[in-house]
Amino acid sequence: MATSVTVYGPPLSTAVSRVLVCLLEKDVPFQLVPVSMAKMEHKKPDFIKMQPFGQVPAFQDDDITLFESRAICRYIAEKYPTQGTAGLYGTNPLVKASIDQWLEAESQSFNPPSSVLTFQLVFAPRMKLKQDEALIKLNEGKLVKVLDVYENRLGSSRYLAGDEFSLADLSHLPNTQFLVDKTDRAELFTSRKNVSRWWSEISTRPAWKKVVEMQNA
Amino acid sequence: MATSVTVYGPPLSTAVSRVLVCLLEKDVPFQLVPVSMAKMEHKKPDFIKMQPFGQVPAFQDDDITLFESRAICRYIAEKYPTQGTAGLYGTNPLVKASIDQWLEAESQSFNPPSSVLTFQLVFAPRMKLKQDEALIKLNEGKLVKVLDVYENRLGSSRYLAGDEFSLADLSHLPNTQFLVDKTDRAELFTSRKNVSRWWSEISTRPAWKKVVEMQNA
Repeated sequence: MATSVTVYGPPLSTAVSRVLVCLLEKDVPFQLVPVSMAKMEHKKPDFIKMQPFGQVPAFQDDDITLFESRAICRYIAEKYPTQGTAGLYGTNPLVKASIDQWLEAESQSFNPPSSVLTFQLVFAPRMKLKQDEALIKLNEGKLVKVLDVYENRLGSSRYLAGDEFSLADLSHLPNTQFLVDKTDRAELFTSRKNVSRWWSEISTRPAWKKVVEMQNA
Repeated sequence: MATSVTVYGPPLSTAVSRVLVCLLEKDVPFQLVPVSMAKMEHKKPDFIKMQPFGQVPAFQDDDITLFESRAICRYIAEKYPTQGTAGLYGTNPLVKASIDQWLEAESQSFNPPSSVLTFQLVFAPRMKLKQDEALIKLNEGKLVKVLDVYENRLGSSRYLAGDEFSLADLSHLPNTQFLVDKTDRAELFTSRKNVSRWWSEISTRPAWKKVVEMQNA
């Protein structure tokens, strides 16, 4: 594929899949270079040059190298405003501020407990690590409070930031997919009427379905 | 003061002070409405209408109400591009992407351990809460790794995102000020040559010195 965009990392990573779904929503061609976490390739000097924290993904486009999935998504949405899904990062300053606000809510309030639950409930068993029941309980309690706020918000707004699907919704896809599909905690989402309606809408978008296929390949 | 901008919250809050320093850097007049956390005013219905998670700050400007300090800072920098400190959120797409990247590094990597340390070492004693030594040790270890990355980065770049002071640097001010000034862990910053030089530069800016005065008033 003739493209300048390269993503380094495994699609199973929530941060990598966040970037992949953004590229697919924006119809940006890319190549995906696998990085084996098992072989600790993300800690090797060549990778650290691109991603100094030794985490995935790393991202290249023309003359820029970036890390941090939400920063990469902002960059993609701003660089390719007219192609693919319009409005992913807003079309006027007030909508953009609302998207930033809910994207930060995801990053600060939703992601911490949902990442812990995804790791403890999905990956720890696969890696034959002991689950930490107290940690699971603590973070399930935190996630419940966040989803109660979302339930209220999504009662008066089709998507988190407003009437259109945006980066704020997109950023929730990776962790939520694991929690709904690969754990016994789907009810956290499906038992809440508005959250459930929202999840059905955003998780069945073609771009995200393609990422899930890549994860299950 | 004739101004449309209102910030709700106590200046001692790291998230509130992040917004205050941004407003001062951009020469945007504002009024500050105190919110007593001790009296749980941030959990009252009128406040929850502005900030559904019941956290500080809340922010109003003309017809927009926002929460999440980093989203508010982005909004301020974009709405008032020509006044105050130029370049706070970049003047071209590549610089902007670099700022977003390091602002996310602050939010995802620096803030979690430094917030825990600020709470445990500064606020827990004031609130007569028992300190959690294991938690302090764990998070000091995490912060050391982040500061090692910063030390390397700041050896080749004056500021985190490039040649100019930006939101990425600004966002580090609140927690770092507490850790350097109000704990015995200042060495984490001062023992690293480049981090120390950077901290001296950013912490002596007039806008931040004014916020520290407000905190100590």
